[in-house]
Amino acid sequence: MSDRLQIQPPVKVVEWISDAKRGWVRLLDQTRLPESEVFVDCRDAQAVRDAIRRLVVRGAPAIGVAAGYGMVVAGQWISDGEDFMRGLAAAGEFLEGARPTAVNLSWAVRRVLRRAERTLSADIREAMLDEARAIHSEDEALCISIARHAAPLIENCSGVLTHCNAGALATAGIGTATAGMYLAHAEGHSFTVYCGETRPLLQGSRLTAWELMRGGIDAVVITDSMAAQVMKERRVQMVITGADRIAANGDAANKIGTYGLGVLARRHEIPFYVAAPYSTFDLELSGGDDIPIEQRGSEEITNGFGRRTAPDDVKTYSPAFDVTPAELITAIITDRGIIQPVNEQNVREIIAG
Amino acid sequence: MSDRLQIQPPVKVVEWISDAKRGWVRLLDQTRLPESEVFVDCRDAQAVRDAIRRLVVRGAPAIGVAAGYGMVVAGQWISDGEDFMRGLAAAGEFLEGARPTAVNLSWAVRRVLRRAERTLSADIREAMLDEARAIHSEDEALCISIARHAAPLIENCSGVLTHCNAGALATAGIGTATAGMYLAHAEGHSFTVYCGETRPLLQGSRLTAWELMRGGIDAVVITDSMAAQVMKERRVQMVITGADRIAANGDAANKIGTYGLGVLARRHEIPFYVAAPYSTFDLELSGGDDIPIEQRGSEEITNGFGRRTAPDDVKTYSPAFDVTPAELITAIITDRGIIQPVNEQNVREIIAG
Repeated sequence: MSDRLQIQPPVKVVEWISDAKRGWVRLLDQTRLPESEVFVDCRDAQAVRDAIRRLVVRGAPAIGVAAGYGMVVAGQWISDGEDFMRGLAAAGEFLEGARPTAVNLSWAVRRVLRRAERTLSADIREAMLDEARAIHSEDEALCISIARHAAPLIENCSGVLTHCNAGALATAGIGTATAGMYLAHAEGHSFTVYCGETRPLLQGSRLTAWELMRGGIDAVVITDSMAAQVMKERRVQMVITGADRIAANGDAANKIGTYGLGVLARRHEIPFYVAAPYSTFDLELSGGDDIPIEQRGSEEITNGFGRRTAPDDVKTYSPAFDVTPAELITAIITDRGIIQPVNEQNVREIIAG
Repeated sequence: MSDRLQIQPPVKVVEWISDAKRGWVRLLDQTRLPESEVFVDCRDAQAVRDAIRRLVVRGAPAIGVAAGYGMVVAGQWISDGEDFMRGLAAAGEFLEGARPTAVNLSWAVRRVLRRAERTLSADIREAMLDEARAIHSEDEALCISIARHAAPLIENCSGVLTHCNAGALATAGIGTATAGMYLAHAEGHSFTVYCGETRPLLQGSRLTAWELMRGGIDAVVITDSMAAQVMKERRVQMVITGADRIAANGDAANKIGTYGLGVLARRHEIPFYVAAPYSTFDLELSGGDDIPIEQRGSEEITNGFGRRTAPDDVKTYSPAFDVTPAELITAIITDRGIIQPVNEQNVREIIAG
């Protein structure tokens, strides 16, 4: 067995280049995938903010890491002296405004800010970069921990089905739903990952298939409507997805379509797993009914492929997420261990305990 | 109640213009929907063949009607005399080659050919048009018969879910899955039809939503992955789809995604109906496992609508159809009556009996 800590993500989503004083953040431009692999170098807070806003970098963990480094480049533009902290705080607020609902974004900004406040020496920029790097490596470690729990499950499969992108592209590491895939692959196991394309925004075909291929894993794209047939033909022995938010009882909100996969997996007696770090759990929510479901605009459905594919003025209904009830989830794979069976007691024991 | 026989389709998919000697076939160009409503006038066999080949006209019943009229225009170009029948037979073979697997196509061609053979008078062209019109009106009548059985079920719903296009656009009448909708609507009932967009080729959003809106019915487009959530929220009280082929035991092959809807409907205790004319049944097939599943090419998934949405050289898996087992189908609504519960005895009684 290879050293499991050596697993590298198939691509660097976010990276710090050079030193604390003159360095910058390099981001993979995910808006250009899968057509082009282009990197964006961000040398000030404005550039980082725009990149987060334009979804150059996406996925809560990856956004957090980018924002941490964003504070370091912001600090390069503020003169030393008693106004430094005030300037840095303003830059932090500016960065946080890029995507107001992204929890990891403000969490990372404040963490670097607090580190700067605690650092009284002239090495303040070094300390800030150190903190940003810590955020980065902690995220990598979370992914590796999830991988350790997930890989043994994946090793036994010839086929795995996933949905949306809970992959390396959404984190600074090897992803959440994909983590076990990269580890099992590195350990020499071979299997096929069926990627549901994930309408309306096609994260499955645009992003997940791309990163898995890049990582040397056999990826097959299907439309979301083909999942039931793929299960019926026994092409997959497990389903694994990420989650956006998990309630105390284990109900898991994720990209629209995930709940349907849970129902289909149950019908076909195929295990259905959710992979997520501890930070995805919201223990103040007792169940999934309390998770609000965001509605998206019509254009993503009616005009998503570069040409209009529905009548003018047609109505649409477009929930962005759905909630898979705990009873359909075989287990939740976290960095802190596997929650199985999925119920409130086990969730609290693993996550809060 | 309005006279149920007065229900007109929202658009004329295929129409004969003028008389037998100088007339022509007018087809709605479905390849241009929903952007433009353009008609194609076909004045010889070549034009009809091209139209069928290019999917200007689609759906087995509509193709049959177009081919019947195609024989009439073909006959206009063949001189009277002893070689007329030979020329007509050659034209028929030419038309049949447009889509070799479409059963209705060769059935209609041969029917007009036989009518010509039986007609010894100078009125042969009139007789051929008469036969083509008979094919047309018989198809209209099949749709109306299905509507009579389906409308009472739809009248009780505030929402109905359908998939793909088993609509007026696929027939010369008011469709199969849509027939009951048009009739219930004409009788003053109001309800919303959720149209699954039906990836990869989007017949649901491009065609079904278009024709329902044209018919004054409230249509809402969703991605296929949203169906489970729509059911969970009790937005629909029934699912109704068409079928491509139904086995003797009631297993029904239809557009990929239909089987998954059957599973989801069962989970949510929502009735799941299939609407189809008698001609869709293949009583020589004992069950759905004998129905071959056509595989489609990659491009429809990776590059369907004007831009590439998956990595170059990515693998795909693309079954065009799936089979919904009889046990998931609440009833099959046919022109000859409702098959419920769905089993071989009831299928044979209604269809063969």
